[in-house]
Amino acid sequence: MRTSYAVGIDVGGTRIAAGLVERKGRTIKEAKVLTPKGGPFAVVDAIIELVDQVSAGVHPSEIAGIGVGLPAQIDFMRQSVEFCTNLPLAGVDVRALIMSRVRQQATIDNDGNLAAFGEFRYGAAKGMRDFLMITLGTGVGGGMFLAGEPYRGARGLRGEVGHMVIQMDGPPCPCGGRGHIESYLGRPAIAAMGRELAKSFKGRAVLEQAGGDIDTITAEDVIKAALLGDEPATSLLMDSGVVLGRALCGLVNLLNPQMIVVGGGIGEACGFMVERAAQVIAEESLAGRRDVRVVQAELGNDAGLLGAAALAFDEHDSREGLAR
Amino acid sequence: MRTSYAVGIDVGGTRIAAGLVERKGRTIKEAKVLTPKGGPFAVVDAIIELVDQVSAGVHPSEIAGIGVGLPAQIDFMRQSVEFCTNLPLAGVDVRALIMSRVRQQATIDNDGNLAAFGEFRYGAAKGMRDFLMITLGTGVGGGMFLAGEPYRGARGLRGEVGHMVIQMDGPPCPCGGRGHIESYLGRPAIAAMGRELAKSFKGRAVLEQAGGDIDTITAEDVIKAALLGDEPATSLLMDSGVVLGRALCGLVNLLNPQMIVVGGGIGEACGFMVERAAQVIAEESLAGRRDVRVVQAELGNDAGLLGAAALAFDEHDSREGLAR
Repeated sequence: MRTSYAVGIDVGGTRIAAGLVERKGRTIKEAKVLTPKGGPFAVVDAIIELVDQVSAGVHPSEIAGIGVGLPAQIDFMRQSVEFCTNLPLAGVDVRALIMSRVRQQATIDNDGNLAAFGEFRYGAAKGMRDFLMITLGTGVGGGMFLAGEPYRGARGLRGEVGHMVIQMDGPPCPCGGRGHIESYLGRPAIAAMGRELAKSFKGRAVLEQAGGDIDTITAEDVIKAALLGDEPATSLLMDSGVVLGRALCGLVNLLNPQMIVVGGGIGEACGFMVERAAQVIAEESLAGRRDVRVVQAELGNDAGLLGAAALAFDEHDSREGLAR
Repeated sequence: MRTSYAVGIDVGGTRIAAGLVERKGRTIKEAKVLTPKGGPFAVVDAIIELVDQVSAGVHPSEIAGIGVGLPAQIDFMRQSVEFCTNLPLAGVDVRALIMSRVRQQATIDNDGNLAAFGEFRYGAAKGMRDFLMITLGTGVGGGMFLAGEPYRGARGLRGEVGHMVIQMDGPPCPCGGRGHIESYLGRPAIAAMGRELAKSFKGRAVLEQAGGDIDTITAEDVIKAALLGDEPATSLLMDSGVVLGRALCGLVNLLNPQMIVVGGGIGEACGFMVERAAQVIAEESLAGRRDVRVVQAELGNDAGLLGAAALAFDEHDSREGLAR
């Protein structure tokens, strides 16, 4: 049976968003809560409550299933959470816990993967066969579609775009590694550069955005100052654009994608940084690959939620033997 | 018709090798020449002569075709040479030139890709679905198999493993980029480090390998000194192993392969460097991915030639509608 709706859930480090999504990608009902801090069951409780909220009044048979994006390394084949930095979900059978309490099929996947899936099905990467998505947020994540399919790797752990080494002697990465893309382009890295800048007179506009308190400067303060025309803040983010471009050059050389979609809070707020990265790619990647399109994501914060719903639709359809 | 043989050709910067190869991967006749320096036609002439030599006495109908590996970026779908650093073949229709003079179908591909294909069909990576091959030679190349198929990218340009950025402010790369894997692990980079070492007393064993002439020190001299037990040369190559490991960590995090095959002249000569890299991967890559097997290539210099023959068999079989 061809169902009309899917529930997409996007679990982040700070909030959980849920939506009841139509097949064409329109979200007809949405709900959000702050991510509870009380352990895995509290997170699952919050998910269940959101599912109930957004699916209230819809007959269960009309719902294809629940897709859940987690900020974690997922073994997709086993549907297990292997590794989770920001939430206590490693080893927790999130899928089974959800399915024991809601009469719906649930499928879990990595949030970056689902953001890519969302852009692929409903956003900037519609119709692409080979594309990369990189999401610049608190962490740097992403996903890859190769030959029209999400790439999941040998164990389903898929592409951790944020944890490529781009500077062997670079700053430490929250994951324990060193000199990863995330060490340069995650929110904490940009905030730290902003605080450094604010120690001198050049950083006064950034400091002002933070209400004069240097310790509270965030990545968003740097971006706001730049968007208001502050030269030092702009220059800082342009340098980040060069770093992003260099990192992406390596990926262009390795994967020869048709398109790179830059998303996440930082990527979306900061078009000129993305443009700078695109310039670097056009100048420094290997000949023959420079026609790769570098674009900003189109779905904003909803990409993960919509991708989760798209996953739920696809899983339903393949269970039922329906073609896409 | 199920043919018995294919001709594999491996065109390198210094020599061209050809072989008549049976379906099971045994090379029954081989020939080599130095790569002629006189322009594209001289290279094609040399290829034709080699094809004639190795296929003499075999009826043309018994030969599936000719596979040719070139040290170039190839648009595989168009069968065109897009970019070639060491030989004047860019824009030359090598395939058509060969086919105009030999009554056989010919197919061209990148040499790194074909080395991976060789290891996949006949060597260390038999039965793998997701693996990477990295070849450390004068250049650093490689290939990827993802989900059991060679990965070719959007335009067929495929994975240039050697041109990932691993140090944004690193030394220049022959391709024009900066801080690429090749800038650290290609033969010229290792030779340069060997010459640097030989400026001090610590480098006397390396200097001895080069007959006392510091300017003629090669990567092989460094490796020979290390294999004879020289501590400074060993330490230099161990450091290169750490670089290799860090570079591969990024690829493990990105692609989650089952296996990494390290080949090329440097990779094959230097097992302890490969082991050091494997240690770094086991320590520094993301959890859940550390079970990747890191092995040396099995086919040595023949990988490219055997991969070229395997390609010719596959192309023949798909033309004839035969299953593999």
